[in-house]
Amino acid sequence: MKVEDLILVSIDDHVVEPPDMFTRHVPAKWLDQAPKVVTTEEGFQAWEFKGNRTGTLSLNAVVSWPPEEWGLDPAGYAEMRPGAYDIHERIRDMNRNGIFASMCFPTFPGFSAGNLNRGHDDLAYIMVQAYNDWHIDEWAAAYPGRFIPLALLPTWDPALMVAEIRRVSAKGCPAVSMPELPHIEGLPSYHDLSHWGPVFEALADTGTVMCLHIGQGFGALKQPQDAPIDNFIILATQVSTLAAQDLLWGPAMRNYPALKIAWSEAGIGWIPFYLSRCDRHYTNQRWLRRDFGGKLPSEVFRDHSLACYVTDPVALKVRHDIGVDIIAWECDYPHSDSIWPDAPEQVMREMTDAGASDDDINKITWQNSCRFFDWDPFRGLPLDQVTVGALRAKASDVDTTVRSRKEWAALNAARTAGAAAGS
Amino acid sequence: MKVEDLILVSIDDHVVEPPDMFTRHVPAKWLDQAPKVVTTEEGFQAWEFKGNRTGTLSLNAVVSWPPEEWGLDPAGYAEMRPGAYDIHERIRDMNRNGIFASMCFPTFPGFSAGNLNRGHDDLAYIMVQAYNDWHIDEWAAAYPGRFIPLALLPTWDPALMVAEIRRVSAKGCPAVSMPELPHIEGLPSYHDLSHWGPVFEALADTGTVMCLHIGQGFGALKQPQDAPIDNFIILATQVSTLAAQDLLWGPAMRNYPALKIAWSEAGIGWIPFYLSRCDRHYTNQRWLRRDFGGKLPSEVFRDHSLACYVTDPVALKVRHDIGVDIIAWECDYPHSDSIWPDAPEQVMREMTDAGASDDDINKITWQNSCRFFDWDPFRGLPLDQVTVGALRAKASDVDTTVRSRKEWAALNAARTAGAAAGS
Repeated sequence: MKVEDLILVSIDDHVVEPPDMFTRHVPAKWLDQAPKVVTTEEGFQAWEFKGNRTGTLSLNAVVSWPPEEWGLDPAGYAEMRPGAYDIHERIRDMNRNGIFASMCFPTFPGFSAGNLNRGHDDLAYIMVQAYNDWHIDEWAAAYPGRFIPLALLPTWDPALMVAEIRRVSAKGCPAVSMPELPHIEGLPSYHDLSHWGPVFEALADTGTVMCLHIGQGFGALKQPQDAPIDNFIILATQVSTLAAQDLLWGPAMRNYPALKIAWSEAGIGWIPFYLSRCDRHYTNQRWLRRDFGGKLPSEVFRDHSLACYVTDPVALKVRHDIGVDIIAWECDYPHSDSIWPDAPEQVMREMTDAGASDDDINKITWQNSCRFFDWDPFRGLPLDQVTVGALRAKASDVDTTVRSRKEWAALNAARTAGAAAGS
Repeated sequence: MKVEDLILVSIDDHVVEPPDMFTRHVPAKWLDQAPKVVTTEEGFQAWEFKGNRTGTLSLNAVVSWPPEEWGLDPAGYAEMRPGAYDIHERIRDMNRNGIFASMCFPTFPGFSAGNLNRGHDDLAYIMVQAYNDWHIDEWAAAYPGRFIPLALLPTWDPALMVAEIRRVSAKGCPAVSMPELPHIEGLPSYHDLSHWGPVFEALADTGTVMCLHIGQGFGALKQPQDAPIDNFIILATQVSTLAAQDLLWGPAMRNYPALKIAWSEAGIGWIPFYLSRCDRHYTNQRWLRRDFGGKLPSEVFRDHSLACYVTDPVALKVRHDIGVDIIAWECDYPHSDSIWPDAPEQVMREMTDAGASDDDINKITWQNSCRFFDWDPFRGLPLDQVTVGALRAKASDVDTTVRSRKEWAALNAARTAGAAAGS
């Protein structure tokens, strides 16, 4: 297999929501209370909802910036590569990176919608639904087959979550983004079935995947006050193990055999170590008399999991100890961990170094994701039309120049002026 | 290489301190205030110091018990296999398990002496010194070459720590047990050189290894209130990554090039994943402008580390990505994770499954530990006298029968009565 023969489905990217996203999805009587984009005193755009403001962290929109300009400061739309928020430019950037299909996590709402769920009231619920309608009916539907939709939930209310899971599932959405560690967000933990039981049941019943994106549960790690920012970025994946522990050793996986969990951007290197330790604990600490229905904990984990990674070269060498049928690649566009526009070359390099067969590569780059989400992004297209080579052939005019934030702002201003003059 | 040709140095075992340990090491005027063994209302022995009592958790003394009898309840000396606390029986058990040399971590003081350091006063300091004198001059000295001594520190006071490091080093002790995450124990974090700087300097200067045993920093993980005990046992090794992060990305490793750190009982599977992530972070997040002196973070980590494991079959397959020169095996006798009396067979099975060469096996089972601690346990003995085969030949009479706690109590009572009748 050559680089141009790869088929790439990225199971974790991000959308920076465009400013007009709510206008067509909120009932008229609530529209003036919907989140809206305002310009801050510092001149950056931020979303405002119920008096709270949430900007876009520049680390979350760095694609095409020089690494020296990345950071934790806010970034406005004007400075971003338009592929961050514009669906048509996104498709062009996906083509250039050889990616046929993508699942996009939210930006300003937070991965489990904490910024929409404020107040736990009707207004919050309406905005979560509006977000999902925009995401499914506009963003993901604009280019059929190119996006696997992902919905948000009103996490505070089990009955509303169940209703929303069934509603979005009926609209064709196979996935929801959920908290890694709800007890860190002031919700009952995943051990508490009085809150999560009906949710797990609705997920299992509809075949909807719960996606646990890293970064949510970092508050579970009591860090030194003098720890540097590096700790947050490097240790974020440690939290995935804590979440796996609650879901595997609590009631979730064992009581709901059809429950499906994606470990989004969690990396995969922690998995064989964690599963060895689980199996050793289970077989060694027999005084605890745990029951995994005749299976090992590692088998139960694999029955329920899709393990997602951007880059993890050593772990790919022990892919059969992880489970080559549960590993899925992701791109993370336009975040700082993203690989753009040369993802295919890096994927192939890591696969080659790990000695992966063509079968293993196909499983990891698209087949496992399509099976797990029960989703056929190609919809009858011949596979030779969805390869890296075929997509890049359509994207020869995509400009991949690295530009400073200032240069991006000037370029985007010129484009806006041109569009205004032309209209 | 055959099982009987293995040479085993276990770099993590545990001593349950015998009741008379302080009598010969505390100055007369303080002796009545030394920790002493009392019998609790429930009939178990516990150490009492400054009004606080600390028993031995039965999980920490399970060797030769049926797994159904393990647990979190207290265990008295009467129920234990005598090798837990009796040096002569310990040597017999080591011979039976083919282990030539052993480093023993403390039990009732806690791994960083929290139960001796109570009050941060002269009395605490005297007892820490007495503990070290007993450990070095009695326990480890009883069978020359069979034990690598390990000292405790008065962690609250940098000047006292420095004095104790120099004192025990001059007595020939190459290692101290220290907190994994001092900020969890109410001490300044390892980022704070005003507290730890002189300590790191004394360690580096004397070539003393700081050993960070798992289990100390578990409080750094904010667990759900309804989490089961399994979380504590399985997730304990997650804390090692947090400690590595503070020591690698804080000033310790980079400011003290000769500082040596042993990751005791941490397992090794987390290391290649963590180091890949560190190197990716360093090369990718260039806006942070971190300086590792021209090296990668992974190289700096390996320069300072000994990575210790009891069993970790998948990780051994990627031993060269971890660093085959920094991996060391350990037995963990008499804890519940210990492998006794068949450690040699399990070690060889994991090595064979991982395709390890004889050279790799020797590095991991003894050479790396001996080099890192700058310690020659064999002291001129020919290597064929320290192999599993040679040691087991001396131990054919060691009884390996699994007995219930009640049966052990009866057996030990009979022995005590026999000894009394014979004296």
